[in-house]
Amino acid sequence: MQTENITAASAGRPVERAVDLRRACRSGDHLGPTAGLAPGYVQGNLVVLPRDWADEFLRFCQANPKPCPVLAVSEPGSAALPSLGEDLDIRTDLPGYRVWRDGSLVEEPSEVVALWRADLVSFVIGCSFSFEEPLIAAGIPIRHIARGCNVSMYRTNVPTMPAGRFCGPLVVSMRPLRPADAIRAVQITSRLPAVHGAPVHIGFPESIGIADLAKPDFGDAVPIEPDELPVFWACGVTPQAAIAAARPPFAITHAPGRMLVTDLKNAQLAAF
Amino acid sequence: MQTENITAASAGRPVERAVDLRRACRSGDHLGPTAGLAPGYVQGNLVVLPRDWADEFLRFCQANPKPCPVLAVSEPGSAALPSLGEDLDIRTDLPGYRVWRDGSLVEEPSEVVALWRADLVSFVIGCSFSFEEPLIAAGIPIRHIARGCNVSMYRTNVPTMPAGRFCGPLVVSMRPLRPADAIRAVQITSRLPAVHGAPVHIGFPESIGIADLAKPDFGDAVPIEPDELPVFWACGVTPQAAIAAARPPFAITHAPGRMLVTDLKNAQLAAF
Repeated sequence: MQTENITAASAGRPVERAVDLRRACRSGDHLGPTAGLAPGYVQGNLVVLPRDWADEFLRFCQANPKPCPVLAVSEPGSAALPSLGEDLDIRTDLPGYRVWRDGSLVEEPSEVVALWRADLVSFVIGCSFSFEEPLIAAGIPIRHIARGCNVSMYRTNVPTMPAGRFCGPLVVSMRPLRPADAIRAVQITSRLPAVHGAPVHIGFPESIGIADLAKPDFGDAVPIEPDELPVFWACGVTPQAAIAAARPPFAITHAPGRMLVTDLKNAQLAAF
Repeated sequence: MQTENITAASAGRPVERAVDLRRACRSGDHLGPTAGLAPGYVQGNLVVLPRDWADEFLRFCQANPKPCPVLAVSEPGSAALPSLGEDLDIRTDLPGYRVWRDGSLVEEPSEVVALWRADLVSFVIGCSFSFEEPLIAAGIPIRHIARGCNVSMYRTNVPTMPAGRFCGPLVVSMRPLRPADAIRAVQITSRLPAVHGAPVHIGFPESIGIADLAKPDFGDAVPIEPDELPVFWACGVTPQAAIAAARPPFAITHAPGRMLVTDLKNAQLAAF
């Protein structure tokens, strides 16, 4: 999820290693967005739910792998996610959190230690930061990055596959690309199913329920040139829309743009 | 190259094995198009040139791998291509040939034994028949096949990379596809670089010099629905345009739609 200006950086010094960035978050030294920090490392969306909602949410992710590619799930009550970082403490290692009660946002703390419960299960879901890196490396210009703003995101009329109490619309991110770059982007992101994979749509926003590309539901609008196609990827905001619809009594997510930075490298995610 | 009605079949009986089809061509029992025959086997475009033109043509193919993916090159003077079929005789095993002198078509014989020379080099170049098969297997409708006509082909304003005396425009084939099918088609054909690989363009025919999709330069026009994108692949007609431009004193090609059917299986071509 990326819902703030992604040009923000940490307090004056570049953070190169994921573990250093997590420690800066833990100590309160880094509270800002994570985009562009610890380059090469996988960043993820966070969803924390009580155990009696977690099983249904995992089924929802399984049924909707393009918007909800699960990178890791914790043991109930555990703040550890050893597959994503040995020392990782999910309660402190993000720059910012959102706390939800009955589907409403109630608080935006910088750590959630005091709110932790023995029944909480953490889900880390892949994020498009990971696929933008190889797109840029391939020489494909990414409009929102060039403009220093957030990616455009839209609710579609494409329903997700419901699972238990979770349902809702597919949310997509959009990047305008020239045709040859769109073809290359399909190739590159197809290799990365753990971070949304190939686009879900190209070319006809109205056919997926988007009336006006200039009015995104999340993030910022960007201009589209006459020789560019709008290319749409499934977006990690989709699970948040499902949580808002399901209204669990308690949930924690990351704050927009303040992702979990893991020890996985983006290059490790490539499927072939 | 596909420039005739592809619904044509052999004389009353389906030919399942490539070697049987080649023998029927050799004996004169099969003179028609090869589309749909020996399903699963790789078919190829044929170009035969004198040795003093062949080196430049091979460099042209090397420089333009998307329109000219070389499957095999013969020894000078040899009618054999053992990597494509053990018993293969390139002079007799196609249903029809075209003979060119100084860039002009002079004859369309059913075998070229009497014209053979010790200095002739044969090139077999991949053909889109091979990638249409996995597209159809993936449930992607192919308009020209559904209509029983030839694929639409267009000269573009995209130049090939010149090599020696060979140059000329890129020729493309076009298939109208719905967006999700276009994305899947990029994935599938990316796996098949030996048969033109991924599309070269999607969406804006005018930007590659195509004024009117309803007026193809080769093959047949097909309708495009409002929710479909025109998807363009590099086409095996491109080398013929280069030969017409270079005007070698002597050349042989296959006759349109009458391809060399090899013992390679399409499934063997997949790169990953």
